[in-house]
Amino acid sequence: MTPPDVLISEVGPRDGLQSVKATMPTADKLRWIDALHAAGVREIEVASFVPAKLLPQMADAAEVVRHAVTLPGLTVMALVPNRKGAQAALEAGVHKLTMPVSASVAHSLANVRKTPTEMVLEVHAISELRRAMAPHVRLEAGISTAFGCTLQGLVPEDDVIRLAAQCIEAGAEEAGLSDTVGYANPAQVRRLFRRLRAELGTHAGAAHMHNTRGLGIANCLAAWDEGVRTFDASLGGLGGCPYAPGASGNAVTEDLVFMFEAMGVRTGIDIQKLIAARAPLMAGLPGEPVYGMTPEAGLPKGFAVQQETTAHA
Amino acid sequence: MTPPDVLISEVGPRDGLQSVKATMPTADKLRWIDALHAAGVREIEVASFVPAKLLPQMADAAEVVRHAVTLPGLTVMALVPNRKGAQAALEAGVHKLTMPVSASVAHSLANVRKTPTEMVLEVHAISELRRAMAPHVRLEAGISTAFGCTLQGLVPEDDVIRLAAQCIEAGAEEAGLSDTVGYANPAQVRRLFRRLRAELGTHAGAAHMHNTRGLGIANCLAAWDEGVRTFDASLGGLGGCPYAPGASGNAVTEDLVFMFEAMGVRTGIDIQKLIAARAPLMAGLPGEPVYGMTPEAGLPKGFAVQQETTAHA
Repeated sequence: MTPPDVLISEVGPRDGLQSVKATMPTADKLRWIDALHAAGVREIEVASFVPAKLLPQMADAAEVVRHAVTLPGLTVMALVPNRKGAQAALEAGVHKLTMPVSASVAHSLANVRKTPTEMVLEVHAISELRRAMAPHVRLEAGISTAFGCTLQGLVPEDDVIRLAAQCIEAGAEEAGLSDTVGYANPAQVRRLFRRLRAELGTHAGAAHMHNTRGLGIANCLAAWDEGVRTFDASLGGLGGCPYAPGASGNAVTEDLVFMFEAMGVRTGIDIQKLIAARAPLMAGLPGEPVYGMTPEAGLPKGFAVQQETTAHA
Repeated sequence: MTPPDVLISEVGPRDGLQSVKATMPTADKLRWIDALHAAGVREIEVASFVPAKLLPQMADAAEVVRHAVTLPGLTVMALVPNRKGAQAALEAGVHKLTMPVSASVAHSLANVRKTPTEMVLEVHAISELRRAMAPHVRLEAGISTAFGCTLQGLVPEDDVIRLAAQCIEAGAEEAGLSDTVGYANPAQVRRLFRRLRAELGTHAGAAHMHNTRGLGIANCLAAWDEGVRTFDASLGGLGGCPYAPGASGNAVTEDLVFMFEAMGVRTGIDIQKLIAARAPLMAGLPGEPVYGMTPEAGLPKGFAVQQETTAHA
């Protein structure tokens, strides 16, 4: 079986769940992750290792990781803001760590109480820690507010690219760009990812786009055009950032997968099963609004067959 | 004042209103059209000239046109499926006629009870009629189901391009492509508009994208990349089937305008005033779901100032 053309990295169980008020019961989280895996999703950001008193939604992070790593072929990722979190995540057995490194000083302080420069040092420390504890574990830096910030306003592109390069020098394998507050537009996405890829080569990481102003999918298309092949997305568009006012809604996984599959770009994901994975999400978060047009409309006539044909072409 | 970089053609008062069950009172329609005009919208498809017993929502078409043509600088467009409708539209004083010419035989028969070939003859007849009655009036053919059809399934691209060319030969000034059922993907949009522009040159018309599966804005971006400069869109994403909640119709004007303005592509539209134009829409259609993320999230900090700067750059 040839590998998919793009990697859809599902961030709902972390980015989504930590942005909503309610706490999803652990059993529902596990059912949700199982359903995502059954649909063919092969990378999931399953939890955030942060103090439970700050984010009670993530209190069961270790338990969730221990379950997720039993699913075959799945890369289990967790967000870690600091060494303590990284240690706990590594002990739980994650395959990949992701760190939020914000290009906006104001957002960085609000989010992790460290400046961007201090976070680069943290990247280095965590990189060393994982080399000592679990050298196979990959480390990714997600450059937050890369396209603008509700607190700082404009974020200079030079700051973003320099910070990404510093994270790679500090030991991260990948640095991606996050539109934390939904300010990005396709022209900017193309410009920044072009610069990122020129600067970092194969270390250039994922596009993490929000749908705050309806451009999530268009911005993913723009990133795809520039050669990006890993895309963060959230089932039902769940998500945001609790420390960035006005941030809501990740790019919707269902619509993103539909776009790529319709274009003949293979995701490895079965859309019908992906849509079925909404059931445990909605069961675990009753009353929470979910987004996504493809689940409402259903697939075009004969689409599943067409997808099958493309997959074997 | 330099002209805008793109023309946003608002189709809500026609495409949107004829897709919903309720009939918007005429006074609300006029207030809505006024508000769109006040926001800077310079082309509006205000009505469809069809038998009132088939579409009671459009019974006041002539009255709406007679009001709309009083608004300075506005191109007033109406949909006409046949000669009778065209005559009534011309008598009411429209500036532009648009005809639905479907590339799917099944859809064409269901929609206008004529085959595509018969519709090309109708285009010719209406072109002659307008030359006799009002030679300044422009005629556009919208090639429906250009990206696939729920009835026919696959629509061959050759059929689409040939039909568009036939409409131009028959006398239309423009032929655009419509994703009537929301099947289009960006790769297909690029491919078809590239062919259309190669075939028709300056006669290649608007991109009419639906948001049925969440790709409306991404498909507009794809069309923009291919040189398309006229985009149909609907305020609040109005449209779709009243029996399928969530399956919205057209690309959302608010999000589309936000995308272009954020990219530095001037639309001539004031987004704050555009958002304000939702009030008469919602007043006239109480309870009807409206879409659009930008109105919910608001504009990014300093965006209006930035837009102003770009407009005068």
